[in-house]
Amino acid sequence: MIGVFHFDLLQQSDGARRGVFHTPRGDVQTPTFMPVGTVGTVKGLTIDQVAATGAEIILGNTYHLRLRPGHETVAKLGGLHAMCGWEGPILTDSGGFQVFSLGALNKVTEQAATFRSHLDGAKIVLTPEHSIEIQQALGSDIAMVLDHVIALPASAAEVEDALARSIRWAKRCREAADRPEQALFAIVQGGLDPVLRQQCATELASMPFEGYAVGGLSVGETPEEMYATAGVTTRHLPAEKPRYLMGVGTPRDLIENIARGIDMFDCVMPTRNGRNALAFTDEGPLKLRNAVHREDLRPIMDDCPCLACRHSRGYLRHLFNAGEMLGPILLSHHNLMYYSRLMQQARAAIEQDRFAEFANSKLRGWGYEPVPCG
Amino acid sequence: MIGVFHFDLLQQSDGARRGVFHTPRGDVQTPTFMPVGTVGTVKGLTIDQVAATGAEIILGNTYHLRLRPGHETVAKLGGLHAMCGWEGPILTDSGGFQVFSLGALNKVTEQAATFRSHLDGAKIVLTPEHSIEIQQALGSDIAMVLDHVIALPASAAEVEDALARSIRWAKRCREAADRPEQALFAIVQGGLDPVLRQQCATELASMPFEGYAVGGLSVGETPEEMYATAGVTTRHLPAEKPRYLMGVGTPRDLIENIARGIDMFDCVMPTRNGRNALAFTDEGPLKLRNAVHREDLRPIMDDCPCLACRHSRGYLRHLFNAGEMLGPILLSHHNLMYYSRLMQQARAAIEQDRFAEFANSKLRGWGYEPVPCG
Repeated sequence: MIGVFHFDLLQQSDGARRGVFHTPRGDVQTPTFMPVGTVGTVKGLTIDQVAATGAEIILGNTYHLRLRPGHETVAKLGGLHAMCGWEGPILTDSGGFQVFSLGALNKVTEQAATFRSHLDGAKIVLTPEHSIEIQQALGSDIAMVLDHVIALPASAAEVEDALARSIRWAKRCREAADRPEQALFAIVQGGLDPVLRQQCATELASMPFEGYAVGGLSVGETPEEMYATAGVTTRHLPAEKPRYLMGVGTPRDLIENIARGIDMFDCVMPTRNGRNALAFTDEGPLKLRNAVHREDLRPIMDDCPCLACRHSRGYLRHLFNAGEMLGPILLSHHNLMYYSRLMQQARAAIEQDRFAEFANSKLRGWGYEPVPCG
Repeated sequence: MIGVFHFDLLQQSDGARRGVFHTPRGDVQTPTFMPVGTVGTVKGLTIDQVAATGAEIILGNTYHLRLRPGHETVAKLGGLHAMCGWEGPILTDSGGFQVFSLGALNKVTEQAATFRSHLDGAKIVLTPEHSIEIQQALGSDIAMVLDHVIALPASAAEVEDALARSIRWAKRCREAADRPEQALFAIVQGGLDPVLRQQCATELASMPFEGYAVGGLSVGETPEEMYATAGVTTRHLPAEKPRYLMGVGTPRDLIENIARGIDMFDCVMPTRNGRNALAFTDEGPLKLRNAVHREDLRPIMDDCPCLACRHSRGYLRHLFNAGEMLGPILLSHHNLMYYSRLMQQARAAIEQDRFAEFANSKLRGWGYEPVPCG
């Protein structure tokens, strides 16, 4: 089963890794950022516009697609790729995080996560096997195991219980996932406890997964706690497999976690912030609704090839001020391109073995001091 | 002043006209449909996507741009073309129709239309001279005279009063409009009264305008009344000038009015309906929200090169059902392309001198019998 997917670790620099993840639908250059297409659309953009940002892989949400339009409908529409017109690889999450964050009245037993739809209150039972079944119907290239996500801070007993269950569920997912054309990534849990993270990573690393994710972060911890936890986790993951930090994050988070050996990221931040008139730049975020931009002829960034940067800040401000759809569209494109170019620059810096220098320069541009790796 | 703009009447067929309107920013093949970019953006689409529909000229709204971002701000942002990135010709209306349809507490005197902003209630005095001043600041290629639009039905006295004022205001606009690179179109009023329409058209035709619009329609009259009024008006307009039917309309309206000698149209219908999940086709409109489309793998139309028709009806339905921005984006593109292709087909039919045959076939496809020209 393993073999169709293959990760080549090309180079390392200051803890950062430059690699290529080979999939049947094309190669993914890492470090990489995956735009989020929750229900089969990266919000506000046509699929060509998403590709034009430089994205090589996008993400779909099992929980959301299970509810709307339904995984069986997606299958009848030819699968996620045919439905949304994206020919490259797609990763689907397992629904574990959304059960935790969205599912009202969710209840987790050893057998399944039971929750009520945030749309109509319908009761849904999500077992590890059903999560895989959904992801197979969606036809994603990379499936994720169903994990048990809990809120932080949590008691040691709660963290250990969720961790042990996540490992047992990972095994059940591995057994259910029987398609050679669909990779399966395990998810390391363990809260902020380095011992539990090590234990979970080591156990999962002994099982045959095509990649490993760091889960259970971006749930309320500080950036420093996140970075430390990612760092301790990656140390216990196999070097020859890609590592994916789920649901992260700010440009700073990406750079700090690349320095800790993370290869893949996803986050709604570029598109969600774009819809809210916030544009990422090398000098930090720009709030396009502010009156200061009213007659500003400059683009958001001088050297950016995105659709927004063909226009003046004054025009972009006007679009948001007038409630025009084009504002969110253009800023979503800018932000995704900013993230994509950041990954491109990070890859180049690793190739030139000057990642720390690159990272420090970016971080200081955004107003941060680098956080020393533990 | 006249001469920079020039209309070539190339061919006629069954009352329909095939022409080219030459402007400093490029030629416009007529009959043509102008997508509406109310505040400097055709809602939901990037300017490249608008161009890809085949549009050669777009429309901006003086009233809306005067309020937001303000015509002086548009001027400081380089004018409407530079601001929104459209390099082809732009026509701006004069604000007369919006004063009528949107301006709360509007009051018309001989000197000016006074109204309150629909946004913040601010009092605005729009004279013919100020309308031209705004349109000059916007930098449009075709400006419209300020006219006095009234609701129908109206008394003969009201119609005659508005008509006489519209002619006086047209003269004031002509005197104020002194830029050779900006054409000025007059607007024929006269309600549904053929005698008043003839009188107004004849008077305006004696004055030096680069084109003539049929105004005061699409305000509550029946399609048959609209067609008859357009027909009687165009008979009294000079053949060597373009004729523009303002704010019209459905695909049927376009075909019926082309048969009556109209060359130019604008309407929010393709984009507004697109945002509301309605797609135009040769078999009539398709409501994409309907459950019947859930698993339909067919595109809206088989031979349509728009962005929506790369996808299945099932996917489009899902996008609207899930409230995703991409639904309105894709259907706006489809509908604008449908209108653009309809104009393209109409031009080809006129060139081949088979317009009536073409029109009848289209009308019957939509479920209408052709309305005999009076």
